[in-house]
Amino acid sequence: MKSEKEVYSAAYQGIDGAYSQEAIFSYFGEKVKTCGCETFDEVIKKVELDEAKTGFLPAENSVAGTIVQTFDLLLESNLSITGEFYLPIHHNLLVLPDVDEKSIHTIYSHPQALAQCAQFIKRAGYHSQAVWDTAGSAREIRQKKITDGAAIASSQAAEAYQLKILTSNIEDVVHNTTRFFILGKHTAKPAEKNKTSLLFSTRHEPGSLMRCLQQFARREINLTKIESRPDRLHPWHYIFYLDFEGHVEDPVIEQALLHLLKQATLVKILGSYPMGEKYAAGN
Amino acid sequence: MKSEKEVYSAAYQGIDGAYSQEAIFSYFGEKVKTCGCETFDEVIKKVELDEAKTGFLPAENSVAGTIVQTFDLLLESNLSITGEFYLPIHHNLLVLPDVDEKSIHTIYSHPQALAQCAQFIKRAGYHSQAVWDTAGSAREIRQKKITDGAAIASSQAAEAYQLKILTSNIEDVVHNTTRFFILGKHTAKPAEKNKTSLLFSTRHEPGSLMRCLQQFARREINLTKIESRPDRLHPWHYIFYLDFEGHVEDPVIEQALLHLLKQATLVKILGSYPMGEKYAAGN
Repeated sequence: MKSEKEVYSAAYQGIDGAYSQEAIFSYFGEKVKTCGCETFDEVIKKVELDEAKTGFLPAENSVAGTIVQTFDLLLESNLSITGEFYLPIHHNLLVLPDVDEKSIHTIYSHPQALAQCAQFIKRAGYHSQAVWDTAGSAREIRQKKITDGAAIASSQAAEAYQLKILTSNIEDVVHNTTRFFILGKHTAKPAEKNKTSLLFSTRHEPGSLMRCLQQFARREINLTKIESRPDRLHPWHYIFYLDFEGHVEDPVIEQALLHLLKQATLVKILGSYPMGEKYAAGN
Repeated sequence: MKSEKEVYSAAYQGIDGAYSQEAIFSYFGEKVKTCGCETFDEVIKKVELDEAKTGFLPAENSVAGTIVQTFDLLLESNLSITGEFYLPIHHNLLVLPDVDEKSIHTIYSHPQALAQCAQFIKRAGYHSQAVWDTAGSAREIRQKKITDGAAIASSQAAEAYQLKILTSNIEDVVHNTTRFFILGKHTAKPAEKNKTSLLFSTRHEPGSLMRCLQQFARREINLTKIESRPDRLHPWHYIFYLDFEGHVEDPVIEQALLHLLKQATLVKILGSYPMGEKYAAGN
């Protein structure tokens, strides 16, 4: 008899308490089975091998910009983007249950989180110590029983490592939001409002990007993101990443895609999916 | 009598041995006076206050993508981009002069550098320890006299902290190049080949990005980079960053700019400057 393999609901990069895991819980509810992976690549493999139904990868952050690694991997993978989710990022100061403000000397976290809370740290006169990831800093506080330090991490991490939230929302920056792609093997059903993501490359000649984009403008299709990436295999050539409103099943989108296909040297549809809700204005 | 203030040739973010400092030495030669700053913001301030003649800020990295912080700061500053410089990034394993391979247990560096050398670290069976920046890891090896560890940093950092390069070019990724902007108060003289950078925003309606880009396509001006950024002050609006070949003094570019100005809601020229040389193909 074949032993049944456990299939996780969602894979993500990181350990328990990572912001990516928080995104999954916010999206699916607290009961889903999540699977932390070491790398982005492993997240994609888990879904490809049916060991996870979906994978959550960060696509862009309103402060740090596009996470190009995700797009580079999507170029090579055959998974679809089946959804998007905007997670507002709030940093919390986490300590062991008995520790209070006065005993803290050092703050542990990922360099980016430390940078986003720089003013808070400076005002309090704490020292900073970089670690691999935010959730890892929380785990370290618990495992090493650090009583003169605190971690900057998600509220999820507080729960995962039984830490106390001493102060919440300690970030200096407002509107810190991460957009996640939900990846799967299927394609999403059209919702009321949809978005489509694709990659394309053009001939290396003036106006070629233009002629590609024209197909969308002519049909009044709203572009929501555009970004050029150097093509690693072809020097001086570029790959363009595009998000626009609409679904590949809409006749007007079909027409635009057909014409794009004739202009571009390569087109890869990453997926059509229900438009996610942006929590904070401006992100 | 007024005491004379020292004016640095170039300001950069980081400490001695940072890759940004290496970029300055590669560009100006080893004799320039450099000034390390804590933040990107401080680099800009140094130039604005005439405490440095130029500032070097990273604009994009071929592996990690656009450094959006630089663009966000350029939107607010009145400095010009007076040049660009492509620095190939090579990571080196640095140790104290008497240390050999067998005594190393832990590798210290910035998470991004550790990630870029992950396969090398794994093969050798080393542990990884994240620190604030690459040059900082080299300084730590020297200051704390760490004999069972190594830093991943630039060859410049080896010199700055009198460390030995045990292995060079340990990065897993090829074509790791960082493009730097050289910022100043003046504008650069036209060279044989020039590039221009600008920011613009559009009305929030379908086809508006299109109508802006059309001004360049129509005149066969070659776009070399395009990127959209959410406008933090105006929800659902975007700011577009554009690089193209040519100089603002070229009549054809002048015409394109005039027409762009009529289509866009805001245009900010960041500078025209001599086109930098890309070292490695594909970056």
